[in-house]
Amino acid sequence: MLTACSSKAVYLLRCSATQSFLKFITMAAGKGGSSSASKGKKKEVKKETGLGLSYKKDDNFGEWYSEVVVNGEMIEYYDISGCYILRPWAMSIWDAMQAFFDAEIKKLKIKNCYFPLFVSSGVLQKEKDHIEGFAPEVAWVTKSGESELEMPIAIRPTSETVMYPYFSKWIRGHRDLPLRLNQWCNVVRWEFSNPTPFIRSREFLWQEGHTAFATKEEADTEVLEILELYRRIYEEFLAVPVIKGKKSEHEKFAGGLYTTTVEAFVPNTGRGVQGATSHCLGQNFAKMFEINFENEKGEKAMVWQNSWAYTTRTIGVMIMVHGDDKGLVLPPKVASVQVIVIPVPYKDADTKGIFDACETTVKNLNESGIRAEADFRDNYSPGWKYSHWELKGVPLRIEIGPKDYANNQVRAVRRDNSTKHDIPMADLVERVRDMLDRIQESLFEAAKQKRDSCIEVVHTWEEFVEALGQKKMILAPWCDEEEVEKDVKARTKGDMGAAKSLCSPFEQPELPEGTMCFASGKPAKKWTYWGRSY
Amino acid sequence: MLTACSSKAVYLLRCSATQSFLKFITMAAGKGGSSSASKGKKKEVKKETGLGLSYKKDDNFGEWYSEVVVNGEMIEYYDISGCYILRPWAMSIWDAMQAFFDAEIKKLKIKNCYFPLFVSSGVLQKEKDHIEGFAPEVAWVTKSGESELEMPIAIRPTSETVMYPYFSKWIRGHRDLPLRLNQWCNVVRWEFSNPTPFIRSREFLWQEGHTAFATKEEADTEVLEILELYRRIYEEFLAVPVIKGKKSEHEKFAGGLYTTTVEAFVPNTGRGVQGATSHCLGQNFAKMFEINFENEKGEKAMVWQNSWAYTTRTIGVMIMVHGDDKGLVLPPKVASVQVIVIPVPYKDADTKGIFDACETTVKNLNESGIRAEADFRDNYSPGWKYSHWELKGVPLRIEIGPKDYANNQVRAVRRDNSTKHDIPMADLVERVRDMLDRIQESLFEAAKQKRDSCIEVVHTWEEFVEALGQKKMILAPWCDEEEVEKDVKARTKGDMGAAKSLCSPFEQPELPEGTMCFASGKPAKKWTYWGRSY
Repeated sequence: MLTACSSKAVYLLRCSATQSFLKFITMAAGKGGSSSASKGKKKEVKKETGLGLSYKKDDNFGEWYSEVVVNGEMIEYYDISGCYILRPWAMSIWDAMQAFFDAEIKKLKIKNCYFPLFVSSGVLQKEKDHIEGFAPEVAWVTKSGESELEMPIAIRPTSETVMYPYFSKWIRGHRDLPLRLNQWCNVVRWEFSNPTPFIRSREFLWQEGHTAFATKEEADTEVLEILELYRRIYEEFLAVPVIKGKKSEHEKFAGGLYTTTVEAFVPNTGRGVQGATSHCLGQNFAKMFEINFENEKGEKAMVWQNSWAYTTRTIGVMIMVHGDDKGLVLPPKVASVQVIVIPVPYKDADTKGIFDACETTVKNLNESGIRAEADFRDNYSPGWKYSHWELKGVPLRIEIGPKDYANNQVRAVRRDNSTKHDIPMADLVERVRDMLDRIQESLFEAAKQKRDSCIEVVHTWEEFVEALGQKKMILAPWCDEEEVEKDVKARTKGDMGAAKSLCSPFEQPELPEGTMCFASGKPAKKWTYWGRSY
Repeated sequence: MLTACSSKAVYLLRCSATQSFLKFITMAAGKGGSSSASKGKKKEVKKETGLGLSYKKDDNFGEWYSEVVVNGEMIEYYDISGCYILRPWAMSIWDAMQAFFDAEIKKLKIKNCYFPLFVSSGVLQKEKDHIEGFAPEVAWVTKSGESELEMPIAIRPTSETVMYPYFSKWIRGHRDLPLRLNQWCNVVRWEFSNPTPFIRSREFLWQEGHTAFATKEEADTEVLEILELYRRIYEEFLAVPVIKGKKSEHEKFAGGLYTTTVEAFVPNTGRGVQGATSHCLGQNFAKMFEINFENEKGEKAMVWQNSWAYTTRTIGVMIMVHGDDKGLVLPPKVASVQVIVIPVPYKDADTKGIFDACETTVKNLNESGIRAEADFRDNYSPGWKYSHWELKGVPLRIEIGPKDYANNQVRAVRRDNSTKHDIPMADLVERVRDMLDRIQESLFEAAKQKRDSCIEVVHTWEEFVEALGQKKMILAPWCDEEEVEKDVKARTKGDMGAAKSLCSPFEQPELPEGTMCFASGKPAKKWTYWGRSY
């Protein structure tokens, strides 16, 4: 039931449903067919190869996104609506984040486990009492082969109800605490709102952490430790700036005590994205599932619990934030190919020498731990290859032509800003490593600048409505009353979806005495971010 | 549809079904409750702590297995029959194997991806024509929330039909080949035969590799490369000897061209276990799913395909082979705790000194990459802890008592053979590393000896029947005719299940001219292993 509140979100991207994507699938499948490309003039690469995107990010964001995830070979649409194939180009990004996160939680003594995909309806009902609005999304298995099951069995939408009966069984004394488990798995939420690759799909991959502590203090500490890991995933790996904060009572995880979040923002749509959430569940679930223990004084006590998760949604946010009209733009830290080396032979040139130089370049980079590959295919022109690897978002391209070869150098071209750099072979590894670091930083800085320029501080309802219309991420003083948030939602309802609170940032600007709530006019208690959201 | 033939197997372990396991669950959950243990006399540890197993491996293998997987904290029984919780103690073994296998297949340029859990019934029907006997095991989703789905949707039992339509889309020219994909995921086979933890469950974890090549030669080569990795998982990691060989026509993967296997053997039950299989699918699926490409001559050609998988079954085989009457016995290479350090304080001794020595020991081992932990719990006696960690199968126990502390040494006790070794602190890391290596080797050697002693070479039907009654793994000359294998099955049908061919080993003993088939009396073509099987 993690991130259950996101099920209420409304979506801008109305470009979904299998049928409307058929053209993209067809385009994506066209690779290998357009041999005419090799004869092309550089200037017209796009038209000739069919590699270019037909939509521009700023003109039609929804169609651009649908196109870039397919043509960039991240996603293939599947014949069941809302299900997507994660191709190796996407999966390697997931794997890179997983390697980081899994190692970090192991340092915290959190252990991996695996609980079943299936939940009996009896156990699921137990949760239903506490969290409404989830039942409509549950997929039910009712048959095996030709036989009806005696009782329908649910597929996990999240694993609280799957796990906590066993927490109750395993936890007896204070020495059994803390119990800190995590699992990497798939979950299913059979939603009928517009599916969007990565951002909203009926099946998705995630990790879900479930922990129990003897004291609230320990639980509180972990909530923030995990949130910091989520921040690092977004900012250090995906180069996407996020704001750490607390969800409002209305937006918090239902049944939990409080929810912390890393909130990202997509400037093109002016929408916030709940990036990942780390919940303190308090003792509500402990009460429901009777998770008790004998404390050090020999008294019966109840555990304090957390749950936390991040999903494949992270990849979608990264694409939305960094992608451009040429295609994907991958941060070096998560790119499975960081450097693509392309030979640029000419008729009268020493082709073998150039190819050998390319091979040596790849070898030297690989040996230094840089993920480099060469594209030696003989049925594509260098120009076609440039476009192809730009579309796939490889951070750095290295070209080796006759002149480079003669001068014992390579030409490096950055994907993020198209700048060109001649690098002597002798400095190759050092310079490339440095450039990759700078690309990673630049992507983050550029995204942060863009995000920051979308932040608008408002004090009044009029300012709020205007900023919302300008697709801003709005920072406003708020009275922190749930009824007022509901009222804001009601008053901003429309085609684009209602505004809601995103989070109250941990870093609070000064709130001078006498500051009033933008919406209610009552005394403000805190600064809170507001906006439309995925 | 990998390992589809295993669905026909019959099981010895008749100890399944949730109800009969409740007592084990109760026992397992008893940890932390028996504080009387700390006052116990060493000799009677078992009775007092309730840690001992109530069944002996040689007396009642089925009950012993059910007990050891639960009490050893590998498995928790779940409230849906045939589904099991993989606890961290089991999951860490899976993770260790995955780290190895995933790195190895990446060296072979095989890439990870993720295809959906769901298959539309239309696509699944396509496979049904080719592989019968699988349909009864498919779980169907027919509802989401309160709504009936328009069409029932199947949960993948394997992903051939999920993936190959997209292979057809992605593969156009010879340059798109080879296409080599792998995914780590869960699959569901709703079987009604007796479920057994790890060995047979309705949901299990596996990797499934699916590859396509331009030529049969390349496919053949990969089949054996992967099989060698499976051998290494069993022999190098799990210390379980396996026999590499080819499945008979009757036992091969239906729809495939040929199946290779690593076959393990469980001496206690006298049953073979199909450890993992690497299939050459030939061109049958390519034909069915129209996976064609333009070859180098510009002609239309069909790909050659393989699929291969290993599952969490590996862990069950390891437990069955190495476990003993004290509990699990984990090979050091896959044990998440390789060394458990236990302080043995006495009333008049320098307890702090002993505890510090334990901490230093753990620290020194950890810094050398050895996975060591100390058990400092103050509510359990050293004797209880010995039994506990023996039950959990930790390869090496280090005890530090007053005498050890005074002599600046530790006492190391091997789990596999109970031998005790005094190690000077100065030699700690080197000696422990060496002992762990030797434990790994010894486990394999002991298992191999035991397995080898179960192999019986027979030449006649009478010898065959006698050996089968003695739970042997039978090596017999065979005419290699499918009708004869069917006949052997029919003639050996009984309570224990019929005998079948396990594999024809790649290492063939000499077959003198004029050798006759043990079953048909016709001229023998090869040596083949036979026996009952899981």
